[in-house]
Amino acid sequence: MKTVRTVRDLRAALSTQRSAGASVALVPTMGALHDGHLELARRARAENDVVVMSVFVNPAQFDDPADLAAYPREEAADAELAVGVGVDLLFAPPAEEVYPPGFSAWVQLDGPIVLSLEGAQRGVGHFRGVTTVVTKLLGMAAPHRAYFGAKDAQQARVVRALVADLNIDTEIVTVPTVREPDGLAMSSRNRRLDPAERARAVGLFAALRRAQQMTSGGERRAEVILVEAGRILAEHRIAPEYLALVDADTFLPAGTVGARSALLLVAAQIGDTRLIDNVRLEAPPSVR
Amino acid sequence: MKTVRTVRDLRAALSTQRSAGASVALVPTMGALHDGHLELARRARAENDVVVMSVFVNPAQFDDPADLAAYPREEAADAELAVGVGVDLLFAPPAEEVYPPGFSAWVQLDGPIVLSLEGAQRGVGHFRGVTTVVTKLLGMAAPHRAYFGAKDAQQARVVRALVADLNIDTEIVTVPTVREPDGLAMSSRNRRLDPAERARAVGLFAALRRAQQMTSGGERRAEVILVEAGRILAEHRIAPEYLALVDADTFLPAGTVGARSALLLVAAQIGDTRLIDNVRLEAPPSVR
Repeated sequence: MKTVRTVRDLRAALSTQRSAGASVALVPTMGALHDGHLELARRARAENDVVVMSVFVNPAQFDDPADLAAYPREEAADAELAVGVGVDLLFAPPAEEVYPPGFSAWVQLDGPIVLSLEGAQRGVGHFRGVTTVVTKLLGMAAPHRAYFGAKDAQQARVVRALVADLNIDTEIVTVPTVREPDGLAMSSRNRRLDPAERARAVGLFAALRRAQQMTSGGERRAEVILVEAGRILAEHRIAPEYLALVDADTFLPAGTVGARSALLLVAAQIGDTRLIDNVRLEAPPSVR
Repeated sequence: MKTVRTVRDLRAALSTQRSAGASVALVPTMGALHDGHLELARRARAENDVVVMSVFVNPAQFDDPADLAAYPREEAADAELAVGVGVDLLFAPPAEEVYPPGFSAWVQLDGPIVLSLEGAQRGVGHFRGVTTVVTKLLGMAAPHRAYFGAKDAQQARVVRALVADLNIDTEIVTVPTVREPDGLAMSSRNRRLDPAERARAVGLFAALRRAQQMTSGGERRAEVILVEAGRILAEHRIAPEYLALVDADTFLPAGTVGARSALLLVAAQIGDTRLIDNVRLEAPPSVR
């Protein structure tokens, strides 16, 4: 595996294989790799000729400087993990390569998919930072496919809207969330949890799983589902920033779980660590 | 020459040659072709294997609905002219192909290059409309090179900043302004001038040419140049929206004409028609 730090070197490293018709995959990450990231890379490896993983902690998408400063950075360990899953090229640019002096471009979407939930909690700059850096990374690597985790469901939806709206010729692949044995969604932030916080954090998926069980059992009313999921969060002493059932396409609140796919999303501070998770809810065919 | 109206057909029409390593040029236009556009296409033809011309009157960059409505549209004549200069593919999408229902993305730059002159006169939406549609067109056609006219000097500068900031892998080529025998810059809007307006319009380039003569003769002071150029505009009964000498890179006001390239730009309403023009001013080596 080769590591490159400039756009010029990235493009040069890809040019021969690209000219020969090789398919290129991009796995964008902020480093601090866990098995969720590795699953993206494994999927990319299986579906493409060349796998590029970017490791870049994007300052533009952090509303909170403390969160940015505390975000784990461990490139040597990341590189070893990337080799292990068959990444061909690690792209780890310094911040000034991505945002050079005089940089002044922003890519911004509008509407509920960027304004609700994470957009409301993290501020309008968050998704603007995401859409800008993703546009840039897709421009840099020009991949045929790019891989995003379903744990960041709203981000995945935003990125799909971005490539559609800006006619970026990259297929966006969303890969199911990878979980710890007790259900906690893999996240680079999990390592910041102390043992007591780690025990409470399991409440996030417990609440979501309970909702899945309810819909499997025929419950379709959002209000009933949200009350019960909220009760399970409270049992784990979790006060959510949001717990919301939305249409998976529009991110508008869903009153019922129906034939259209709905997402149940939760965000909460566990101690000093902010975690998010979500599941897809679908009414069983019999009650649609 | 083939005409296509959807992004899918455009990409399909290009895919075989692109896979075979052909270089692709894009000449973005709003139609109503004149010799300035044709010069872009001739240059693209000389430098590339495949030449795509887009014809799309971009509603997003018009601040004034009346200006948008009055903008000339004549696709049959445009197609004939495009054939004549060797365009391979005419891409003429309907508005809903470019801005489908639910479209919500904007690409926006910041700083003097978008806020000054045309940005100030036409409103913040103008260059946002330009940068958004250019990002989209470059995404649709993925050209190796795209051709823009020097008559729209600020637009060309903005597009260069756009591709740099968003890492779009397209070379931006700026082609010198094509002029009528009396010096009037070619523009789709010229045909709206009545004979008396057409006679006055020559004052735009007369003023710019006088400035060029002054700097060739050693004059470096912006104030002296602007006063004299303004006098020539007044002789032609032209009250400019702006007449400005700026650094060609930063678009900040230039106090003198020096070794760094400066642009003298003018915009004016001639009757109901808004025209712009510019020249590059450089001090002769002896007085640098």
